[in-house]
This record gives sequence, C-alpha cells and structure tokens, in this order.
Amino acid sequence: MRISDLGEFGLIERLKEILKSEKIGDDCAHVKFGDEYLLLTTDLMLEDVHFLLGYPPEAVGWKAISVNVSDVVGNAGEPRWALISLMLPDLEVDYVERLYGGVQKACEFYGCEVVGGNVSRSDRLGIDVFLVGTSKRPVGRGGAKPGDSVFVSGTLGDSKAGLELLKMEKDSYEDFELALIERHIRPTARIDYVKHLQKYANASMDISDGLVADAWHLSRRSGVRIDIDSSKLPFSKELLRFCEKYRKDPKDYALFGGEDYQLLFTHPRERWNPFMDMTEIGSVSAGEGVYVDGKKIEPRGYRHF
Amino acid sequence: MRISDLGEFGLIERLKEILKSEKIGDDCAHVKFGDEYLLLTTDLMLEDVHFLLGYPPEAVGWKAISVNVSDVVGNAGEPRWALISLMLPDLEVDYVERLYGGVQKACEFYGCEVVGGNVSRSDRLGIDVFLVGTSKRPVGRGGAKPGDSVFVSGTLGDSKAGLELLKMEKDSYEDFELALIERHIRPTARIDYVKHLQKYANASMDISDGLVADAWHLSRRSGVRIDIDSSKLPFSKELLRFCEKYRKDPKDYALFGGEDYQLLFTHPRERWNPFMDMTEIGSVSAGEGVYVDGKKIEPRGYRHF
Repeated sequence: MRISDLGEFGLIERLKEILKSEKIGDDCAHVKFGDEYLLLTTDLMLEDVHFLLGYPPEAVGWKAISVNVSDVVGNAGEPRWALISLMLPDLEVDYVERLYGGVQKACEFYGCEVVGGNVSRSDRLGIDVFLVGTSKRPVGRGGAKPGDSVFVSGTLGDSKAGLELLKMEKDSYEDFELALIERHIRPTARIDYVKHLQKYANASMDISDGLVADAWHLSRRSGVRIDIDSSKLPFSKELLRFCEKYRKDPKDYALFGGEDYQLLFTHPRERWNPFMDMTEIGSVSAGEGVYVDGKKIEPRGYRHF
Repeated sequence: MRISDLGEFGLIERLKEILKSEKIGDDCAHVKFGDEYLLLTTDLMLEDVHFLLGYPPEAVGWKAISVNVSDVVGNAGEPRWALISLMLPDLEVDYVERLYGGVQKACEFYGCEVVGGNVSRSDRLGIDVFLVGTSKRPVGRGGAKPGDSVFVSGTLGDSKAGLELLKMEKDSYEDFELALIERHIRPTARIDYVKHLQKYANASMDISDGLVADAWHLSRRSGVRIDIDSSKLPFSKELLRFCEKYRKDPKDYALFGGEDYQLLFTHPRERWNPFMDMTEIGSVSAGEGVYVDGKKIEPRGYRHF
C-alpha cells in the first residue's frame, strides 16, 4: 500500500500509533514546563509545493514565519523562539539574504526571535521553521462547548482568490486583485488575538485548510456539532469584486479556501468584543459534524497525497 | 555571488547579521525560561544527501533522532520533546512505518517524546527533526579555560570508515566491517554523559564535523588554543583492523572523520572519571587555533557547498 492510498490523515493516524503518543495530530503540541506551557509547532515551505521561486523572496520568508506564528496564536500562545532549517540549492546569495530579510521583518512584527537553525544542500529550496511559543493558558481544538457561539477573525476566502489570480499570470492586475494576491503570498498571523483567546476561548485554531475542513477538526476533537450560517460569513470588498468580475460565489471561497490564516474559535456570545474584527458565524451544540445552513457538509481542501 | 562562492559558514555569518542575533551559529540555542534553560536544535536527514533509500528505514529514523539528541547532550541537556517535519514522496506505507519504528526506538532509548510534526509532499524523502532539551546548567562551546584538559568520549573515526565500506558496495563484509558500517548508519548519542557535562564541563560539544573541525569551533568560541596529542587518540579495534586491511592511517580517520557523534569537552584533569570511556587527548591554553602534535592544522571536513 502506498501513502496515496492511505491519505495524509490516515498516515498520521498510523504514525501516532507507532509513536504511542496522545499529543500528535493537532497543529501545535502543548507541553507543560514549570508553571507555563510550551507550544511547539513546525511548518515547511517547499519550492513548487508551497511557493514558486518567482515569488518575492521577502514574501516567502515572511510567510514561512507567519504560518508558524499562526499555529501558536491559534492555540492562544505568544511566539517566542524559532529555528530555521534551510534546504538550499546553489542560489544567488542575494536571494537568500532577501528571504531572511522577510524572516527578520516577520520576527520583529510578531515579537519572536530566530535563535538557530541548520543549512543543508538540496536540489530544491525549502524553509522549515520550528517555533516555540509559550502560554499560561493554551487553548486547543478540544474544548468547544454546546451553547458556545462560533467566531472567525477578519475575512475569509481572500487567499484562495489571490492564488487563482496568481495562476492566471496576467500581464497587469487591478489594485483589488493585487490586494488579494498580497493576502495569499504575505498573510499576517492574528497576533492581536492572543490575549482574547487566552482569556475567553473554549476552543481555538487557525484556519489553514479552509473553514469547513478546520471546523471538522474542531468538531471531532471537541465531540460537538458545529453549525455555520453562510449568510454571516465575512467577505472582504476585494473578494466581492473578484467574485463579481469572474462570476464566482464568495461563499465557496470562504467555506473551502485554504491559507487564510484567520482564526476559528468558540466561546459564549457575551464575550464578543466589538472592538475586534470578529464575526459570529454559527453555534456549537451536542452532536457531531459540520453543518452549513442546516446541511451536513463534508470537508474539502488541499490534499497532499 | 552564489552560495558556493561564500561557503556554508560565510552564508551563516551573513544571515546572522540580517537576523541581528547573537544566539545563532552554534549547534544548539540556549534560551532561559523560568529557572531552567531550553536547548533548541534542528537537524535534517535528506535522501541522497545524508542517507540513501537503500539504508534500513529503521536506521534512518534512529539516526534522525540520534543526531539531534547528540546536539542537546553535547550542550549538557536532557532531550525532552521532538517534532518531526516529514517530506514524503509517494512511498510504500511500510517504509514510513519502519522509519517511525526507528524513531520510536530512539525516543524510548533517550527518554524523549515525539509530540507533533508536519507532513509535506516532496519528490525526495526528508526527515527534519526539531528537538527541545532542558538543562539547569547548559554548557556551550564558549567556556574552555586555559589549564583545562581536552577530553573525548568513546572512539573516533569509526563512522568515516563505515561510510567508506558502505560505498565499496561489497558482496560480503567481515564482522568488524559490519560493526563499522553500523556505527555510521546507526550512531548512538552519548546520553550517558549528560550528568558529567552538567557537573564538570567548562565547554562541550558533539563531534559531527570531525575532531579537528569541531575543535576549531570550540577554540574560536572560547578564544583559546587547543593542543591535541595524536598518540592519545582513542581508536576502536575495528578501526585498527580496517586501517591494517586497507592500508590507512587511523589518525586520519580520528582527526578528520565526521559523524562520530562522540563528545568533545574540556575541564580540569582532576575531574576525569575512570568509570566512563573518556580519553584525555590534549590541553587548552591561551592563544588561538588547533594544533596537533604542536603543528597548526586547518579544519577539514564535510562541506555542503
């Protein structure tokens, strides 16, 4: 049997058994140390799989840090220390310096620090980031309670639209299109939500596989049913213009688009904070599965195998 | 300018400047957290660069953990939590399960735990391990003091001999040859030295680039001169048989062979422990550079670029 027969999640289940670990499977591991928790996560950016060499190297460096920070933030942690394992073809030094310029900008922005790493020769460029975060109260996928409301930060679907625009390889783009492309190649992790999540969230994660796919992760882990009201999904004006121009349905982008790096979290409605860009999109109840407008929807999203 | 013009260490110096970090450059970062230190390290095993697909997968998994544990142990830390970032072609599931069997065996042996990771599709197999260790008193490369003796654990040069034997692709090997090959493909990190190093060492590191190259790292970081007496180098009986059979000089293997994953450390002679396999091979004095039998020897070792 090949890995493609088993699928990514099937494979992870098997490896979990071999490693006899209960901790594996979420996007961020929590380990107790002293009075606090360490949050450990890793995410890789591989040439031709996650980015193209033609992307601005600063953006690739920025994104490599951001996607890891997003995992830590999604677990209500502050990002602290990163290691970078760099796989390098014999590129121009300038390229690597610009890449690290983006890494440095991201670390300054998020308040974390690269403390070490490793360089290996490789025929394709890869940037593997390991990030350690800390939290006095980490929040995982497993704590959603019936009666909670379901919230998301920011707007959804922009990254998928940006990726599609990139793939069109147009000679020129309108401003709103460039904004969407930016959101794909240079996403920002929602570091501004850490305190809110630490204080109020029962369950939390970042949205990287797409809203429905990630809501399934949360639903399974918490053992609850999640209802999403599609009329409440937050769209950016840029996504709406995109959908108008290319005759697409924005709901499709918001529900199934990956790599938004927004947050999905649950807590009682009263804890909603009107000064943050959070939107109540649904509710948690006893049961299982993810429902959109009352209809059970199976996960869809990026598949590695 | 290309990376190959600058070299691995030149590149790391440039990246260090961009990241404005003092911590980067050693094989293991130390960060204070509460009353203790976290030791953070990462090491990658890439198909065709660090291993071949024909190696037993259990050995590859064992080695991927061992080389990281070796970094933590070399800094006087206990290995605690690992993440694995797996780059996977569409292999047989059985291969991956056997690989993780080796990972699990190693974690049991060293007392650490895989708590998470990440799987990405890739055209070549890669296992990137990120290891967090802890220590009440980490020991780095920077503390060697004039008057210290220089010690190594175990025997040196076996791994290089093992690699050369592997490359001969002989139809059959003698037992001592198989033992050397084993030491190359399945090295053991010296977890048994952690307490000794924590208690006594002024400077310490693991030997992965070769004794002379690593002694240079230690000499530079500590700002001292290191003298090695080649008549004191510890050889295994297997290496001596190998050198006899193939007319090689064992000193050459011990001084310049990489991937032994033994330890190089300094402390006063009185702290020598006769119950451990440590050998005094030289001394630390004021000055700079690495000298073998009184002659300054430039580093030689594996170069990525």
